Amino acid sequence: MFTPRTPRIVAARRLQRRRDRDQAGRFLAEGPQAVREALAAGVVLELFGTPAGLDRHAELTAQAPEVSPVTEEALEALAETVSPQGLVALCEQVNVPIAEALAKSPKLVAVVAEIRDPGNAGTILRTADAAGAGAVIFAGDAVDPYNGKCVRASAGSLFHVDVVRAPLDVLDLLQDSGLQVLATSGTGSDDVDSLLDGGLLSAPTAWLFGSEAHGLSDGLLQKADRRVRVPIYGGAESLNLAAAAAVCLYASARAQR
Amino acid sequence: MFTPRTPRIVAARRLQRRRDRDQAGRFLAEGPQAVREALAAGVVLELFGTPAGLDRHAELTAQAPEVSPVTEEALEALAETVSPQGLVALCEQVNVPIAEALAKSPKLVAVVAEIRDPGNAGTILRTADAAGAGAVIFAGDAVDPYNGKCVRASAGSLFHVDVVRAPLDVLDLLQDSGLQVLATSGTGSDDVDSLLDGGLLSAPTAWLFGSEAHGLSDGLLQKADRRVRVPIYGGAESLNLAAAAAVCLYASARAQR
Repeated sequence: MFTPRTPRIVAARRLQRRRDRDQAGRFLAEGPQAVREALAAGVVLELFGTPAGLDRHAELTAQAPEVSPVTEEALEALAETVSPQGLVALCEQVNVPIAEALAKSPKLVAVVAEIRDPGNAGTILRTADAAGAGAVIFAGDAVDPYNGKCVRASAGSLFHVDVVRAPLDVLDLLQDSGLQVLATSGTGSDDVDSLLDGGLLSAPTAWLFGSEAHGLSDGLLQKADRRVRVPIYGGAESLNLAAAAAVCLYASARAQR
Repeated sequence: MFTPRTPRIVAARRLQRRRDRDQAGRFLAEGPQAVREALAAGVVLELFGTPAGLDRHAELTAQAPEVSPVTEEALEALAETVSPQGLVALCEQVNVPIAEALAKSPKLVAVVAEIRDPGNAGTILRTADAAGAGAVIFAGDAVDPYNGKCVRASAGSLFHVDVVRAPLDVLDLLQDSGLQVLATSGTGSDDVDSLLDGGLLSAPTAWLFGSEAHGLSDGLLQKADRRVRVPIYGGAESLNLAAAAAVCLYASARAQR
């Protein structure tokens, strides 16, 4: 049984750091829900589990290409949460090249541009998936989609949509593939409800979301087809980033039903 | 200058605990944005600040009924975040009795029923405010709205809408005051887009949101006028609670424009 000092556990544990994830092209998914989705997506290389965890989730264990029983201490070393329920999967990253993702002509795309908070990025990934998006593009200096907190916040959606990593300057590619690019901004001249009323959201759309601290850069705002705000009807100055993304993505989903 | 051992600092620091907040009917708001909103709402009793913080935010200092310069160490003791920018305000709680809130005939109300995560509750408070809600009801064993993390996630909205604390069984009161009660549920028989299409969301509405872990109880679901789901168009099993709340509250805001 693997212990925290077994070389394969030591190597897997390094994947908690971004540099090591980038180099290896691998990451860790913990807990039965994430493991189930990773198995369904065919990206699990090895399933680590305590004997109790492997036994409790025998249907998952049966699907894994390689199963390695580990001690409680080894599992704790691999996991970032306190209760991963005895399972952590070593997975291959599922990055899709942007040209490949756009060749599928997705009707709805979310671009997280320089978003640094893994919880926000993961929540947007989950919401984009729920709204029917085909791809989520992590653009520029955005958080690593394989950050543990992002993986957990995505609640499996990391494995459902095309996850793309791209430089910040992707607008030409998006526009060339027939997507209208809508950049979110608290001071945008269009509001999302008016666009919906005007029938403008039924066209294939890429939504751009910037960091909660700084929003989108002037360059990206100018290059987008429209600058769109979520209307504020009460006293709040603005919406939380993930909430604003939910309103925008679901307005598109509503128009594209 | 107050130090961490000055009795008023020791007493204020106790407000980081719910029991002490409940007993005192007071709470702490940290950082210039929250302090500004608390001052505008007239609930600040005393403003604690480092000399540099008070100086940097002289326009806020000028409005506070009482200003107490404190050492860096005292400010650190009061603050829960690493950078409150030198300011923490001692505030009176702003609970509004439910009868008073409903007597104003709000067209939109959010009920957070037994929601335990302060970040989720604060984000829903902020989103409800942005969508034009008049009241947010913390029902049953929900998180304390004056929890520091909830106050921060609300981004000032705690001071904009009527914050009501009520037992879980508030549906009769809501319905008697003319609000239709829509209970959110992943398996609800109505979907929010169909209600919007059917013109059903223009009526005065109270949205019920349950805990992310357990949702709403069967009793609340049955007693509500409708059980409503946010449609899922992709592979995600569900939405994050705050994202689902954003979609529902903004669907109402759209209908009630």
